[in-house]
Amino acid sequence: MTYKNFPMVPRVIFGRGSFNQLNEILAPKRLNMNAPFIFLVDDVFKNNVWLTSRISLSYDDKIVFISTKEEPKTSQVDELVEDIILMSKERPSGIIGIGGGALLDLAKAVSIMITNEGEAKDYQGWDLVKNPAIYHVGIPTISGTGAEVSRTTVLTGPDRKLGINSDYTPFDQVILDSELTKDVPKNQWFYTGMDCYIHCIESLTGTYLNAFSESYGEMALDLCKQIFLEDNLSTIDAQEKLMMASWHGGMSIAYSQVGVAHAMSYGLSYLLGIKHGVGNCIVFDHLEEFYPEGVEVFKQMKIKHNITLPQGICSSLSDKEFDIMIDVALSLEPLWENAIGNNWKKTITREKLRDLYQKM
Amino acid sequence: MTYKNFPMVPRVIFGRGSFNQLNEILAPKRLNMNAPFIFLVDDVFKNNVWLTSRISLSYDDKIVFISTKEEPKTSQVDELVEDIILMSKERPSGIIGIGGGALLDLAKAVSIMITNEGEAKDYQGWDLVKNPAIYHVGIPTISGTGAEVSRTTVLTGPDRKLGINSDYTPFDQVILDSELTKDVPKNQWFYTGMDCYIHCIESLTGTYLNAFSESYGEMALDLCKQIFLEDNLSTIDAQEKLMMASWHGGMSIAYSQVGVAHAMSYGLSYLLGIKHGVGNCIVFDHLEEFYPEGVEVFKQMKIKHNITLPQGICSSLSDKEFDIMIDVALSLEPLWENAIGNNWKKTITREKLRDLYQKM
Repeated sequence: MTYKNFPMVPRVIFGRGSFNQLNEILAPKRLNMNAPFIFLVDDVFKNNVWLTSRISLSYDDKIVFISTKEEPKTSQVDELVEDIILMSKERPSGIIGIGGGALLDLAKAVSIMITNEGEAKDYQGWDLVKNPAIYHVGIPTISGTGAEVSRTTVLTGPDRKLGINSDYTPFDQVILDSELTKDVPKNQWFYTGMDCYIHCIESLTGTYLNAFSESYGEMALDLCKQIFLEDNLSTIDAQEKLMMASWHGGMSIAYSQVGVAHAMSYGLSYLLGIKHGVGNCIVFDHLEEFYPEGVEVFKQMKIKHNITLPQGICSSLSDKEFDIMIDVALSLEPLWENAIGNNWKKTITREKLRDLYQKM
Repeated sequence: MTYKNFPMVPRVIFGRGSFNQLNEILAPKRLNMNAPFIFLVDDVFKNNVWLTSRISLSYDDKIVFISTKEEPKTSQVDELVEDIILMSKERPSGIIGIGGGALLDLAKAVSIMITNEGEAKDYQGWDLVKNPAIYHVGIPTISGTGAEVSRTTVLTGPDRKLGINSDYTPFDQVILDSELTKDVPKNQWFYTGMDCYIHCIESLTGTYLNAFSESYGEMALDLCKQIFLEDNLSTIDAQEKLMMASWHGGMSIAYSQVGVAHAMSYGLSYLLGIKHGVGNCIVFDHLEEFYPEGVEVFKQMKIKHNITLPQGICSSLSDKEFDIMIDVALSLEPLWENAIGNNWKKTITREKLRDLYQKM
């Protein structure tokens, strides 16, 4: 038996307004005046002076606004890396991702691909990255994905949706300022928060669970219940607690894995471009047989927040399309092994998955 | 308002038997054959082949066994550093601390003092360390102190008992193998576990608390209650959970502080050499007015585990001796400010502390 030597984010700052300390944190990390900082920022902040005025650009530093209408792609990472290399006199001093899970994953992937040859798709999988990434900072503006703390960056490639899982993936620095999440639209708040909730359920009921992951998972689950089921938190407290829930939920996956909802949701994203948060919810809503208690509480949360999930998204798909989704889902073997155990192939058949997808 | 940019242990391995992976973890960190690894090991393991046979010594690597009959001292750190410099051809590749809080604190302090001039006592305080420490690894063999994760190393100096608090203090690597705690004597298990429990109570009731520290504190407190009040954990589960409780309890202090029990217990240690774990318990037992619920639960735990605390340890002290303890306790201003608030000096008088000490 050997255990994973888990890489943790070595620096974290937590606090309402801590985003104001960004420039002070970056200054000592500047390599020289020809090595810029590149800020990858969700384009919802494009004309948002409240946020952008606090990013001070020196020398050749650049802000690149990025649309997150679609899930991040390996080709998008490759293009960003090419643009950054062309626009910079020297290798950048660092990449700073400001946004939700998509932006954080892009920042992680770009910082890896600046020092590793070839294309991003070559590194989808486990421990394929050879060289350390450049300095990279994650600043979440929506809570739930756990991308701020995880050792993966999930990308849709030509062949599959899969993470670049490596010891070089985690951020060197994270800034947790819950004030940045204050304007998240309600549906997105719910879907992304449920990503965290589903991480907890999948981790806590999984066969990979150990005391490390269990303690983080229990803590995140408890916070999710306070936030999504109870009524006694102030708006600010709820934002701060959801930010911590996301962090702990991500830590819970360290020694564990996600499960059925994530495996099937990757299929939906790959074929239909369904975004991760809502995709997880669409799938999880139909997983009573795997997660009876977890799904029951999820349905209570949905009712409490008056959330209506998209229906019938698979109703007009062809056999070939079902097969594509099923292939993607079944390829995520560690997720099934965690959820069901070593013998998962006995019960998780193509027919089983097709039946489930047809309900969605 | 500015927030602390908290340094976290960048690598952690958790698992029963993970100590077997020590040599594999160290190998890539060896600078050259003249730069040894120095293992500081609690001398309770001196003839324990089960543990020592798994430390493989190459080139000039050395094991130094250290007695923990007394709390770690600044002079002890200075002597260790001098010995290590004399015995090594070059600056060591790393310091590995194997033991309880005392050994972990010594390993942290030695790794700092190898690269910083002067004496350890010069660095007692906050952010006085100038140069990064050498690579240092912490391997707890008893759970509760949180020393494996904290940014301090608490030392008794000529003038005071106070930590070297710095961003360079935390370990570069921690190995959490609960199997190493299997032979801890019952009293020591209780006293050290209560260090964690008291961290939680002091952090959770403190004025410095934020959502970050609260979530870690709640998690650790819940684990402590499972371990010390309930009966449904296996021996191994209880050991694993206590190891995680210690970790999370330490993390809870990140943005918070300890409080009354720690401040007064430092006085006991400084004057009487009372060890930290039992000292905390002796003090906490008399702190109902500050921590009513916490002390009530503590007394339940004491009864459940049939623990008798030393009594009357201050009964024959002179006025001068009381004054020394009171001076040490009152000098720990951040602890009082966290416990009581900005106006703590109004209620925490010398007479008040003398009254409390006299009960112990």
